Amino acid sequence: MTDRNRRLVLAERPTGMVDERTTRLEEDDVPAPAAGEALARVRFISIDPTIRTWMNDAPGYLPPIAIDEVVRAAGVAEIVESNSDRYAPGDLVFGMTGWQDYLLADEGERQLQPLPEGVPPTTALSAFGVTGMTAYFGMLDVGKLKEGDVVVVSGAAGATGSTAGQIARAKGAAKVIGIAGGPQKCAYIKDELGFDEAIDYKSENVAARLHELAPAGIDLYFDNVGGEILDACLANIALRGRIVLCGAISGYNESEARGPANYSMLIIRRGRMEGFIILDYFDRFPEAQAEMAGWLASGTVKASEHLVDGLEHAPDALNLLFTGGNTGKVIVKV
Amino acid sequence: MTDRNRRLVLAERPTGMVDERTTRLEEDDVPAPAAGEALARVRFISIDPTIRTWMNDAPGYLPPIAIDEVVRAAGVAEIVESNSDRYAPGDLVFGMTGWQDYLLADEGERQLQPLPEGVPPTTALSAFGVTGMTAYFGMLDVGKLKEGDVVVVSGAAGATGSTAGQIARAKGAAKVIGIAGGPQKCAYIKDELGFDEAIDYKSENVAARLHELAPAGIDLYFDNVGGEILDACLANIALRGRIVLCGAISGYNESEARGPANYSMLIIRRGRMEGFIILDYFDRFPEAQAEMAGWLASGTVKASEHLVDGLEHAPDALNLLFTGGNTGKVIVKV
Repeated sequence: MTDRNRRLVLAERPTGMVDERTTRLEEDDVPAPAAGEALARVRFISIDPTIRTWMNDAPGYLPPIAIDEVVRAAGVAEIVESNSDRYAPGDLVFGMTGWQDYLLADEGERQLQPLPEGVPPTTALSAFGVTGMTAYFGMLDVGKLKEGDVVVVSGAAGATGSTAGQIARAKGAAKVIGIAGGPQKCAYIKDELGFDEAIDYKSENVAARLHELAPAGIDLYFDNVGGEILDACLANIALRGRIVLCGAISGYNESEARGPANYSMLIIRRGRMEGFIILDYFDRFPEAQAEMAGWLASGTVKASEHLVDGLEHAPDALNLLFTGGNTGKVIVKV
Repeated sequence: MTDRNRRLVLAERPTGMVDERTTRLEEDDVPAPAAGEALARVRFISIDPTIRTWMNDAPGYLPPIAIDEVVRAAGVAEIVESNSDRYAPGDLVFGMTGWQDYLLADEGERQLQPLPEGVPPTTALSAFGVTGMTAYFGMLDVGKLKEGDVVVVSGAAGATGSTAGQIARAKGAAKVIGIAGGPQKCAYIKDELGFDEAIDYKSENVAARLHELAPAGIDLYFDNVGGEILDACLANIALRGRIVLCGAISGYNESEARGPANYSMLIIRRGRMEGFIILDYFDRFPEAQAEMAGWLASGTVKASEHLVDGLEHAPDALNLLFTGGNTGKVIVKV
């Protein structure tokens, strides 16, 4: 707790990983809510790869974070003071909180949503939040998962990947193959999360292993990483296979983008590669959350979370996603 | 005419363009049709970029052409002798004739189809053939062209591209932009074929011109070339834009494939990139040919053809596709 508002603002656009020059810690007075506003104390911040893309001065699905602006991020906050009928002190809310201690909520643009009944705050950011929704709609709506599909997920021990693979299992995939870095993560996704197979991209030839594990090809590849792994999956795509482009984390810190050299396999195998942005599915979150609630209750899907303590460690928490230092959803506890 | 069967067989797999070492001219006796067989004299041979891919020892949608095997190609032939109820002397037929003077037709695997009533033999290989069908199903079935779409076609003065652009116009595209090499081809597609705009990739900055001509983005890009032009189109893709991968001619002669570096625009703009092979649409050719017949009769679609005289010039004719030396469909007159 603090009676000052600490804010991590973007000081300098990073060229690779974020470092101590990227953000600047500022301390301001805690803002006072006007009529119709409420004061929210940020409790948990969602750390997502997309935050790194917002730091670039490049076209995207949202405008870049401006220099001197608080770093944009989703989070869960608690209402601590309210001059609004919409919010009462003690309410837990979520929305775009940013990397800071406090923010004002109102009934307009800076609206924060109430947390669904019975959902723990970190789960609201993992399985019930954008992460889980991305896995759900990416796998089912964009990827059009069918029973009997051979499914591959990269970044499989990460927040979205681990959920996506479990959803594929729950929906009747014939085989779910996860690609992750290192023996621990590979053991985790097989033993804890029920993936059928795991490929360690750090020690194995991914293309060759995919060929062994999916001799008839990959029906659906959920891509979180891009780069060489995307190429290895393209090389092994099944006839009419689908590739869901969820992210390209391997390229987010590079200034020279590298395209998938094997993309012409999409012609040979009549394949489809499609991108999506979860914001487009906002209206359909309730249906997905209803199904997710059942899976979480039955243990069919396990929400795995990786907590980092302290707002000041948010930049390091972001880097974890790119060094592969996390297992599950990275959340900063403020 | 000849009473020997000249055959161009694959002597050596090319690494770049085909040259005098790639094929070898052999002369055999004209084969004699057994019972149930007919002898067909090849009249016209379809020259398609895909022939070059069949010369590589690489996985594809058909097996590679074997060394010492006649180069595989579609063509139109005339039945000159028949021991089959299916064929009568004088019949014009089409199918996989290969780069040779004569072949045997039978009622099984080596079946040749009768030419549709009233269709000239070269049109059977251009607008009515695989070329026109590729343009038709690529634009309408894979690309799902909608009225009001802003459409871009590369290789726009080539066989498939010129037809694809005219189909987009016929089906109500808001704007059809062709990308071609050189002022002559650009004038041709605008003045003769009715494209709204033409971009000369040899002298213009394609990405910048696309941004000017399609400020709200490209709804549908029909890609015949891959490479830098695919990247320029990805950079300008509209929200939910579609890219139809028809071919990647810019890469067919290269041993190191290059991927589209801007593919992550598919995520930002929620785009889709999909490949197809026209063989999958064989059963639906009649519906497309019926519509095409109307367009040809009304002059809505013009079939442009580029004839090359002499079987021995088939390798040079194939190279025309990669040097951009042709306007319209390249056909060898045997």
